[in-house]
Amino acid sequence: MKIIVVGAVAGGATAASQIRRVLPDAEIIIYEKDRDMSFANCGLPYYLGEVVTERDRLLQATPESFRQKKQLTVKTKHEVTAVNIEEKSVSVFNHDTGESFIDSYDLLILSPGCSPISLTATKEADFIFPLRNLEDTDAIEEYIKANHVKKALIVGAGYIGIEMAENFKHRGFDVTLTNRSEHILKAMDKQFVPLLKNIITEHQIKLLLNDEIVSLDQHDIIFKSGHRESFDIVIAAIGIKPNTDFVKDSGIELNENGYIKVNDYFETNAEGVYALGDAIETFYRHTKQRTTVALAWGAHRAANLISGNISEHKEPFKGLLATNIVRFFEHTIASVGISEQELNEYDYEHINYEQKNHASYLPDARVTCISVYYRKDNRQLLRACVFGQEGVDKRIDVIATAMGFGATVDDFKDIEIAYAPPYSSPKDIVNMIGYKA
Amino acid sequence: MKIIVVGAVAGGATAASQIRRVLPDAEIIIYEKDRDMSFANCGLPYYLGEVVTERDRLLQATPESFRQKKQLTVKTKHEVTAVNIEEKSVSVFNHDTGESFIDSYDLLILSPGCSPISLTATKEADFIFPLRNLEDTDAIEEYIKANHVKKALIVGAGYIGIEMAENFKHRGFDVTLTNRSEHILKAMDKQFVPLLKNIITEHQIKLLLNDEIVSLDQHDIIFKSGHRESFDIVIAAIGIKPNTDFVKDSGIELNENGYIKVNDYFETNAEGVYALGDAIETFYRHTKQRTTVALAWGAHRAANLISGNISEHKEPFKGLLATNIVRFFEHTIASVGISEQELNEYDYEHINYEQKNHASYLPDARVTCISVYYRKDNRQLLRACVFGQEGVDKRIDVIATAMGFGATVDDFKDIEIAYAPPYSSPKDIVNMIGYKA
Repeated sequence: MKIIVVGAVAGGATAASQIRRVLPDAEIIIYEKDRDMSFANCGLPYYLGEVVTERDRLLQATPESFRQKKQLTVKTKHEVTAVNIEEKSVSVFNHDTGESFIDSYDLLILSPGCSPISLTATKEADFIFPLRNLEDTDAIEEYIKANHVKKALIVGAGYIGIEMAENFKHRGFDVTLTNRSEHILKAMDKQFVPLLKNIITEHQIKLLLNDEIVSLDQHDIIFKSGHRESFDIVIAAIGIKPNTDFVKDSGIELNENGYIKVNDYFETNAEGVYALGDAIETFYRHTKQRTTVALAWGAHRAANLISGNISEHKEPFKGLLATNIVRFFEHTIASVGISEQELNEYDYEHINYEQKNHASYLPDARVTCISVYYRKDNRQLLRACVFGQEGVDKRIDVIATAMGFGATVDDFKDIEIAYAPPYSSPKDIVNMIGYKA
Repeated sequence: MKIIVVGAVAGGATAASQIRRVLPDAEIIIYEKDRDMSFANCGLPYYLGEVVTERDRLLQATPESFRQKKQLTVKTKHEVTAVNIEEKSVSVFNHDTGESFIDSYDLLILSPGCSPISLTATKEADFIFPLRNLEDTDAIEEYIKANHVKKALIVGAGYIGIEMAENFKHRGFDVTLTNRSEHILKAMDKQFVPLLKNIITEHQIKLLLNDEIVSLDQHDIIFKSGHRESFDIVIAAIGIKPNTDFVKDSGIELNENGYIKVNDYFETNAEGVYALGDAIETFYRHTKQRTTVALAWGAHRAANLISGNISEHKEPFKGLLATNIVRFFEHTIASVGISEQELNEYDYEHINYEQKNHASYLPDARVTCISVYYRKDNRQLLRACVFGQEGVDKRIDVIATAMGFGATVDDFKDIEIAYAPPYSSPKDIVNMIGYKA
């Protein structure tokens, strides 16, 4: 049995490791188009912020460690450029030698991931960087050190933009954050934007909303609004697109945005071809709607299920809730469920509730705001968003756990949160959702 | 409609408040045998530790505030001494005047709570205190100030003992903790006792295990082991018993340990008599076994359900999981489900797992130990215990939420924890329970 895996980051590397456990004798080869495998991509902003001080801790595995510990062959700088599903083979381009070759598979696992969308107005400037991998990170770090960077522009106020703004501030830079719309952190409720703006202002980050870059003149950035300002470095974090150009003519089905379509077993329409990670279309666990979610949890879950599915333990995926979280200075904001935009497909009720995170007589109690959306007809939870400081992660995870079991808003009265004064209240904020509904 | 409530702390005060909402015109009177109503009993150790600095923040309500805001009559120092279920009346003793009287009810709500078990060997010494209510707390505080207390003995290493040891240490006292058995914090797994001992030692608290007080000579405490030592103050926290002597001859059914028996609607066997709080026998949500749980969550849930049951929204109680948690210096330990002793009634599997609480490349990652017990036959979770620092509360609450939905150990693979480096891992420790099983 020969297995080819495309992509050696979270999805691909984990799938290969898991498959090695169930198929100890299979030949497994992983092709990775970039320089590094299996790095901690969520940790990159914290390295650039000098919170993580040892770069090598971000590298979770190397081709050498994978070969020695798991008998897995990882070929980096090897880009799979085409798939032939009839012949069960892939075309591979070796970026080091410039050579191409064909390799055949019995099973093919696609985990190509996504790439940042480029700033079209400024493509070629040497001080403008995406932040997708360790190569980008090294390039940014090198540029910062060589050019005594002090003034940074972050384009895009999603997770990466927000985390980079915090981390560059932590490093002592003068930071400006710009976003095309008013809605900072689009995964979170729009109602929390004023709170986010306050945090941004409190931390002396400049904010340019409803604006975008139209051109540049040396280091001067020219915005649509007419604003013109010079920056030492620009980090572009305006969104992602799936790296699926290489499968477009293969007959493997993609959705209208280029994401790979899979069934509940992560099988594509092509025989022997599985896909996982950021580049697939999957579905919400609670509503069954199709969606795409570029987060680590789903990639790891899929890796495990695929390894089971190709051995004897065939088990369907239950779907995703897109539970997501971001720290922003001393604050945390998290959401779970369908997006705010997708709510429009339902007749829903909305509840807002505020309560201290724990006993208010203890000195460090902080307000936690919780926002919950549920269906009017069957009262099932559709979405929640939590904003606060300590304990936000706990509340979103409790809600996500309940939603995984198909919870209605009424079920929240019966969730038995552990109470002692430093942790919660006898009626926790998640219970209050149920009482308020 | 006239409603009498016995007890004005968590259960009684909350039940009365909730009933006022559904029965705006009922006459509601609450008899409380002690001086204070509705104090934050879980906050008392933190006040004695000078963490909570404003005493009045522990008083959540007064008879005046209850009368004004809710038209509820609270009579403190009024002890209900007997119940006549045929005549639907109670006998009340007024501790201020020494007078007794009879009062009749249409509905009777019993929330008498529990009392600390006394140290029989040392009953009458003026430097030995229980810690049950604000009166005790005031007496301790007064004694500490008047007698320049510097050296304290805590008897009993349950929640209160552990919290008092920490808080007296926080106040700068020389603290000794003694316990009759080896098993410190009996609600937690015995396997964690060595870790607890390390914390105790690190914080220079002296520990006398497998020992008990046999007598005293002035301020000298004489132990069974022969050890003899002088202490300025002794806090006795060796256990509790239900305050149900007043119903013993009433015909209201008690269990063999004196706890009031109720059905799923918190109705006793006597018509129109409900009971809630620490003094009732209730049942585990997941296993349906009968149990008693002296924790705040159940009292508050019962208060709400009783108010519904006496109005039009009759809803049965789903049971308790006994989720409980205690902070001990920088550590947190928590458990949920049946007790370690009760596991013997099942054929079960046990899993231990250790993992960092969040991305290990961030500087403050800490090991979290998780212990899970599940049934061999249907793989349903019976009990879990978590030991660590930050994030223990989150894991126990996620597990409790899942157990509330009848989770099997396999369900834990599909719990979608929010991941960002400061909060968890792409496969969180709760997912690993499922993978390891």
